Amino acid sequence: MLDQSPDAVTRVTCIGAGPIGGGWAAHFLARGYHVTSYLHDAAEHDALMRLLETAWTSLEQIGLAPGASLDNFNWTTDLAEATADAEFIQESVPEVLPLKQALYKTLGDIVDARVVIASSTSGLSMTDIQANCATPERTVVAHPFNPPYLLPLVEMIGGKKTSEHTVQWSEQFYRCAGKSPLVMKKEIPGFIATRLQEAIWREALHMVANGEATVEQIDQAVVNGPGPRWALMGPCEIFHVGGGEGGMAYCLDQFGPALKLPWTRLVAPELTDELRNAMVDGCVEMTAGQDFATLSEKMNNGLVEIAKMKRKFEA
Amino acid sequence: MLDQSPDAVTRVTCIGAGPIGGGWAAHFLARGYHVTSYLHDAAEHDALMRLLETAWTSLEQIGLAPGASLDNFNWTTDLAEATADAEFIQESVPEVLPLKQALYKTLGDIVDARVVIASSTSGLSMTDIQANCATPERTVVAHPFNPPYLLPLVEMIGGKKTSEHTVQWSEQFYRCAGKSPLVMKKEIPGFIATRLQEAIWREALHMVANGEATVEQIDQAVVNGPGPRWALMGPCEIFHVGGGEGGMAYCLDQFGPALKLPWTRLVAPELTDELRNAMVDGCVEMTAGQDFATLSEKMNNGLVEIAKMKRKFEA
Repeated sequence: MLDQSPDAVTRVTCIGAGPIGGGWAAHFLARGYHVTSYLHDAAEHDALMRLLETAWTSLEQIGLAPGASLDNFNWTTDLAEATADAEFIQESVPEVLPLKQALYKTLGDIVDARVVIASSTSGLSMTDIQANCATPERTVVAHPFNPPYLLPLVEMIGGKKTSEHTVQWSEQFYRCAGKSPLVMKKEIPGFIATRLQEAIWREALHMVANGEATVEQIDQAVVNGPGPRWALMGPCEIFHVGGGEGGMAYCLDQFGPALKLPWTRLVAPELTDELRNAMVDGCVEMTAGQDFATLSEKMNNGLVEIAKMKRKFEA
Repeated sequence: MLDQSPDAVTRVTCIGAGPIGGGWAAHFLARGYHVTSYLHDAAEHDALMRLLETAWTSLEQIGLAPGASLDNFNWTTDLAEATADAEFIQESVPEVLPLKQALYKTLGDIVDARVVIASSTSGLSMTDIQANCATPERTVVAHPFNPPYLLPLVEMIGGKKTSEHTVQWSEQFYRCAGKSPLVMKKEIPGFIATRLQEAIWREALHMVANGEATVEQIDQAVVNGPGPRWALMGPCEIFHVGGGEGGMAYCLDQFGPALKLPWTRLVAPELTDELRNAMVDGCVEMTAGQDFATLSEKMNNGLVEIAKMKRKFEA
């Protein structure tokens, strides 16, 4: 609740029992929370329990928080009962705006206004979702990546009526809960990670449509090429390291003109001085000024571990 | 040599001593080959030796081939001497077309026509590079990802004058040498992996240019979100698994309309029946018809290993 310290939360309610809602339940349980899931239909129960058990096998290997147990799990098909004792609510119902709007209208009336309601939506804006909610200040978008118990990203942004305190408190809550929250600067369609993912996906579809590559070739190109690097460093830091001692500045000044080459169907932005400097300064800050040798050693060590892991799986 | 079996090659010459040329030398040494590097300038020698020693630390951890040793390395600044005994040549000189054309003209005259000359070019076409070469049939593009000793991808394609035998023989040679060659269907700018990488990169630049995300947010979004999955599965298989029991067919039929959403600045291709079926059939073939449970277990196991690795590095 918003008048608690974010690290004092012990009871979380997950609304929705699909892969995302169930995955969130698994994550919060593994971090030691008491979790109640609201199921739209009791028939979803068996699939949800299978999901929790599958997830638990993975989570035990990574390490559970003290006190974490599947015994701390409850479920119900009664929304008022599910949310009665909640100190935090994670909503993961289907991506249908009228459905979410109706749900937030109900929740807005029945749930204590100090309880944050966070939506797992991957595409809708909280401004739209909260439109009919009487207590919209405590609602926020918190979009995870699947499976939420193994990938730490949570993209966050409030709607027009969301309070700044809700966003900041929730960001801290997710950190306490072992996630990596990212508070976005603007409500943009697809948020950040999905936009990047979608750019790859559309380029891949173009290549298949034009007979330039097969499905398998596209996947092999990623998994055997840039993919393992992306598990360790983002696209900006990769170029920062790729530029050697000169870093991102060298890359942009040397290879900037390559932006004009037809290396994807996505048109490039103009490489203004302002954009160049934003990229360079951003890389230096992000890496806390670590030098090329340090960064490239970090990358190599990670790639060695991934290579060893793949050999183990193949054997 | 083209009249040998690809697994009979024992001596490889690497032309160029930068990160790519040196990285190739490290890779071939680790796989047990005798390697000669041609250096444009003797002054490059010290940096090359440092690169080989750094690489060797990584390669020892992954595992060396029997007989692999840094003692099997030689270098020279004499091109004729460097190539005299070569059974395979990997060329990695700077990406300047007139430079490569002049080099292939020389090599075409002085190197036995049975020796394949493979270019690490990331953007030039072999049709252009081989323009002035008297023996172009044995020349081929073989583009690695950096570092070539840790990432297995080699994107391959011949030029207009390259023989089909050269492409097939070289593909087999790279497999013997522990790489993952991918023979492309068409000479397209940026090949496959770089096009996909470039789509992400340009979308990222647009976001920074528009103040929608910072450099650090873009990198965090990838590393904590889709990145770890891309180390394990390509974008097509990820959607195939993401579709649950229904696989890629479910994804496209359900979420196809989302292609019209402005989730990236890259315009989507039309999702024709032909493209839909190419994607669906490609996924089923690529995964040898493995079911959802098997594929998602594979993905989860990999993500657990990556999560454990990251914890270890943080500790």
